[in-house]
Amino acid sequence: MSELRWDPLKKNWVILANNRGRRPQDFIIDREKVVMSACPFCYGREEKTTHEVFAIRTDGSRPNTPGWRVRVIPNKYPVLGIEGDLDKRGAGLYDVMNGIGAHEVIVENPDHERNMADLSPLEIADVLKAYQARLLDLRRDSRFRYILIFKNHGLEAGATIPHSHSQLIAVPVTPQAVSTKLSACREYFERKERCLICDLLNQELANGSGVVRDDGDYVVYTPYASSQAFEMRIVPRRHSHDFALLSEQEIAALARALKDSLMRLRSVLRDPPFNFVLHTAPPMHLRLGKPHYWNSLPYDFHWHIELVPRLTRIAGFEWGTGFHMNPTRPEDAARFLRETDLSVSF
Amino acid sequence: MSELRWDPLKKNWVILANNRGRRPQDFIIDREKVVMSACPFCYGREEKTTHEVFAIRTDGSRPNTPGWRVRVIPNKYPVLGIEGDLDKRGAGLYDVMNGIGAHEVIVENPDHERNMADLSPLEIADVLKAYQARLLDLRRDSRFRYILIFKNHGLEAGATIPHSHSQLIAVPVTPQAVSTKLSACREYFERKERCLICDLLNQELANGSGVVRDDGDYVVYTPYASSQAFEMRIVPRRHSHDFALLSEQEIAALARALKDSLMRLRSVLRDPPFNFVLHTAPPMHLRLGKPHYWNSLPYDFHWHIELVPRLTRIAGFEWGTGFHMNPTRPEDAARFLRETDLSVSF
Repeated sequence: MSELRWDPLKKNWVILANNRGRRPQDFIIDREKVVMSACPFCYGREEKTTHEVFAIRTDGSRPNTPGWRVRVIPNKYPVLGIEGDLDKRGAGLYDVMNGIGAHEVIVENPDHERNMADLSPLEIADVLKAYQARLLDLRRDSRFRYILIFKNHGLEAGATIPHSHSQLIAVPVTPQAVSTKLSACREYFERKERCLICDLLNQELANGSGVVRDDGDYVVYTPYASSQAFEMRIVPRRHSHDFALLSEQEIAALARALKDSLMRLRSVLRDPPFNFVLHTAPPMHLRLGKPHYWNSLPYDFHWHIELVPRLTRIAGFEWGTGFHMNPTRPEDAARFLRETDLSVSF
Repeated sequence: MSELRWDPLKKNWVILANNRGRRPQDFIIDREKVVMSACPFCYGREEKTTHEVFAIRTDGSRPNTPGWRVRVIPNKYPVLGIEGDLDKRGAGLYDVMNGIGAHEVIVENPDHERNMADLSPLEIADVLKAYQARLLDLRRDSRFRYILIFKNHGLEAGATIPHSHSQLIAVPVTPQAVSTKLSACREYFERKERCLICDLLNQELANGSGVVRDDGDYVVYTPYASSQAFEMRIVPRRHSHDFALLSEQEIAALARALKDSLMRLRSVLRDPPFNFVLHTAPPMHLRLGKPHYWNSLPYDFHWHIELVPRLTRIAGFEWGTGFHMNPTRPEDAARFLRETDLSVSF
């Protein structure tokens, strides 16, 4: 029998549809690969991109030349543009504002062939430090309500350029998915003086069946009400609202957890398309008429990463209801992810 | 410059991304077609399906034999099962219930090769009458909070069987997408004593640039804050909360409007994958301890159909924010849809 499960963090029901393909092999298909003759993200082709806004270079090399390990550039085809003032107005019953924001690309390593799962923990730590640097910089811009960092891997997950990269989009309104999580956490904290995400983590740890990996610093688990098959959440055990404030040591541990999770996903589902999204507290600009940041507010949020393979399609039912249909029980997914042999390559 | 637009009905922002492919030809690609050797929905193969729960037959033929024009059968692989009592319980911070519901398939015509856009208005009217009959029947089941009728066309829109069919899923909780619309309408009505969907329709009619078709009974328009390219809404001019209560004449007019919209979509985008979803008032079971229906409540909802081609992918940004990125301005989409030549086949 199928089951409906309620996610108190996303405030939504999920349908676990038992009748659908659900073991890893049911999801493994030949996937279209993008082949690029001249990749603009490749080492030595820096002049093909927009001017870099950040890079990690250890050899004293100059911007927009070789010598980088991680490189951040404005997206050449930005969804939202950085120039201009916000212009907000009504349009009858609708509202409209111009598309002010930032859209950047984090090129994760110079080598076209190496995906994030192939990078060493040290190399992944550099990527995470680039995320931190960009978050801290863009937070100073009071036009932005949220800064989303995410990664698309594989064509079905929206990656049109195969060279491994993440993206950052700063938006002038708080996105619905973010405000739902924030309000869930705030309401919970106001009632209980505890963090919802801490409590969810503790419940998953006590239950145990969804835990994929626990190294004492970070827990990786498949949430009980996962909306997608093989969805994973990477959560720090230490309550912390702000990813940008992590120490070097915490970043190093996260890099290990992230690499391990990516390798497990790749191993179990044979390099599936996936997205990951960093959820961290937004900058707040609403107090005393000048920019304030979330770290001056009660610490009721808890940053985390959502890692979601793209295995199923959105159809009319999902569109019309907002439900997701997950064909794999999260506890089954966790078992496959836990037990996979990471020493076998394919 | 891109633009953000707020949809007061779905309570969400949409990003109109001007930098992306946006003319119809940018979306036209070769699509995978499903070829079936033995289609279970075909005329003469009635014994291959589950037992029909409804059919339109005019020749006195018996159930589960040939002679039908429209046929409704339980889905052989239901997402939710019809048998049993609801079992709802907490699971720590989560909630869980067993997957009680109904999942039916409406086979729209006997011929494997004819899609809904190929059917005559009379034939489409029969399909719509089947929707009405199933809604009225399943509403009597007090376990169901909502009954969604929708159609998937094309593999990318979730249709794994190409023989033209719609689906019905009855669910034991009110889906988020439905409750958002219901509450938007209720709040608006409480404040203004007017219907939000009537007022949105009037604004679109006054503006005019999004109107695709208006025959006096039904208006087809591309909503100002469309979240998908070439999204259309089919709205009755006469305020009515309940699709199931439409008269024969109203059904006939809707069949003409629906056929015309499907033909326009097919013509402009060369048979794109699409979904449509019927939004109508849910059964209400909460009063006086016995089933009551929405038509005993203030008429603050207004039924309509959403028709959405599946042209873009969900990637990390959409997943992490809940925003949709629409690469085509709705007013441009409306122009293409209005001006397309329906006499040309392809």
